Amino acid sequence: MILREIGEGALIRRIRERFSAAIPVGIGDDAAVFNLPPGDSAVFCSDLVVENTHFIRDLHPPDSIGYKAVAVNVSDVGAMGGVPMHFLISLALPGDIDMSWVEGFLDGVERACKDFDVSLVGGDSSSSDRIFVDVSMVGRIRAGGAVLRSGAKPGDGIYVTGTLGGSMLGLERLKAGKTADPAVRRHLYPEPRHRTGAAIANRAHAMIDVSDGLSTDLSRILEASQVSARIQKDRIPVAAGARDADALHGGEEYELIITGLNLPEAVEGIPLTRIGEIIRSPLDHQLLLIDGDTESIIHPQGWEHFG
Amino acid sequence: MILREIGEGALIRRIRERFSAAIPVGIGDDAAVFNLPPGDSAVFCSDLVVENTHFIRDLHPPDSIGYKAVAVNVSDVGAMGGVPMHFLISLALPGDIDMSWVEGFLDGVERACKDFDVSLVGGDSSSSDRIFVDVSMVGRIRAGGAVLRSGAKPGDGIYVTGTLGGSMLGLERLKAGKTADPAVRRHLYPEPRHRTGAAIANRAHAMIDVSDGLSTDLSRILEASQVSARIQKDRIPVAAGARDADALHGGEEYELIITGLNLPEAVEGIPLTRIGEIIRSPLDHQLLLIDGDTESIIHPQGWEHFG
Repeated sequence: MILREIGEGALIRRIRERFSAAIPVGIGDDAAVFNLPPGDSAVFCSDLVVENTHFIRDLHPPDSIGYKAVAVNVSDVGAMGGVPMHFLISLALPGDIDMSWVEGFLDGVERACKDFDVSLVGGDSSSSDRIFVDVSMVGRIRAGGAVLRSGAKPGDGIYVTGTLGGSMLGLERLKAGKTADPAVRRHLYPEPRHRTGAAIANRAHAMIDVSDGLSTDLSRILEASQVSARIQKDRIPVAAGARDADALHGGEEYELIITGLNLPEAVEGIPLTRIGEIIRSPLDHQLLLIDGDTESIIHPQGWEHFG
Repeated sequence: MILREIGEGALIRRIRERFSAAIPVGIGDDAAVFNLPPGDSAVFCSDLVVENTHFIRDLHPPDSIGYKAVAVNVSDVGAMGGVPMHFLISLALPGDIDMSWVEGFLDGVERACKDFDVSLVGGDSSSSDRIFVDVSMVGRIRAGGAVLRSGAKPGDGIYVTGTLGGSMLGLERLKAGKTADPAVRRHLYPEPRHRTGAAIANRAHAMIDVSDGLSTDLSRILEASQVSARIQKDRIPVAAGARDADALHGGEEYELIITGLNLPEAVEGIPLTRIGEIIRSPLDHQLLLIDGDTESIIHPQGWEHFG
């Protein structure tokens, strides 16, 4: 059975059957309506997933596309210190796509809702010759409590959650057909650190999630905060089996980079590793890497679209 | 100059330069942060625009794509009775697209921000072989004040704002190369009725905007409200030069269908025309059209994706 035989109306009814949210207005009207707790601000973000740019239909299982599209937004809300709440999905699909792909995709979205305690409340659909998925998410944060990229101060420690390099390793093993390899799971079903982000928010000076790679995302903090950083290569927590270069530059990790003073060794069960410190930056905003007795300037080498 | 030569970082900097919002955190962090007035709920919607499905690159000017992508979301918020506030754009573009297209698109977005008093606060970008635009918008509404599709009651009058059929007429004239024709403007730069929707919200029982055609969108109210409707063909306000069939079935009008008792003849300067009434529906949810001394059942003939 292909999507064209089902039609748009039945697709939307199918989604309404599978997803419901305890809010004033959910899926099925012109817009969703929900409330924020008094004293909280809204956190608002979106993330786009495009076939052949972000994933390959024959390589990535459909439930991982659904799961990851939600997870990356959860990660963005968490990187502000917020608590994710509700999301919309805009989904463009070819009319000849098999319904098993669509059901698989929805399986992944449903699992993400459970894992991250978020709810699908609406969206839009369209035909297209390629799959496009755009998730937009709203979360909440205590007013004035958002942790920005611009808050890093000289003297701050630089911390990362979990380990780095595992997503690239997983992608390589996936491409090699080793789908049962535990590293593949890391690439297909990332675990955003939103609970850690929310729990550390009142002690963090700056925070960002690693979507484009440590070198690129830490550089974003440096630029926004007008500071430099010195990190030590041997302190970077490299995932088992991953290359050092992937730990430094590989994207889609969804770990957090946090700067602050004397942060704890673990938050919400996730280890924090101090990999270096923020330093004053009289001129440029440089990322310095100490490797044994060598110090070198690292340039961001993360993903560049349109390149 | 093409987008690939500029790169993603410069594109985002360009957008940040052109758009700023008076909110706690705007474009440039992991997420935007904004506040809702105390006592208000959030209204949350998204709308997807896909090249070759919703528009043709050689036919539709880029500023109309930007303008319309914002306008259709403003219309959705208005159809709940809400006031639109902030939006995100997820934009997938081919690397070889000319920067003049991108600047034109942003011109349209900027004009929409001014016309509708809304602000661009973030989004995402990606490369793609087709243009894909997804706007997600948050507005505000007094808690408990949202006007749903499900509120129509037997005895309600059925009203529409403005005129219908003009968007299809405009599309036809655009395709015929008559770009200076005033009807073309209606198709390219729709005027959502959000101010009317917000002003009438406390007197409306049900409300929806005409995105897929009067027959389709009114049927959505009937289905959600478990009622039928009888409308009179000669009362439908047909746009000058438009066909009756397009007034009945043509989409992309962004007028409002409102049901309620004794609604005024105009709201916020926009005329309301009473075209029929909601009737009890013991069996099906039928849309009956009275044309002279003939009464017939009208089936929704609006746009169907994946068809």
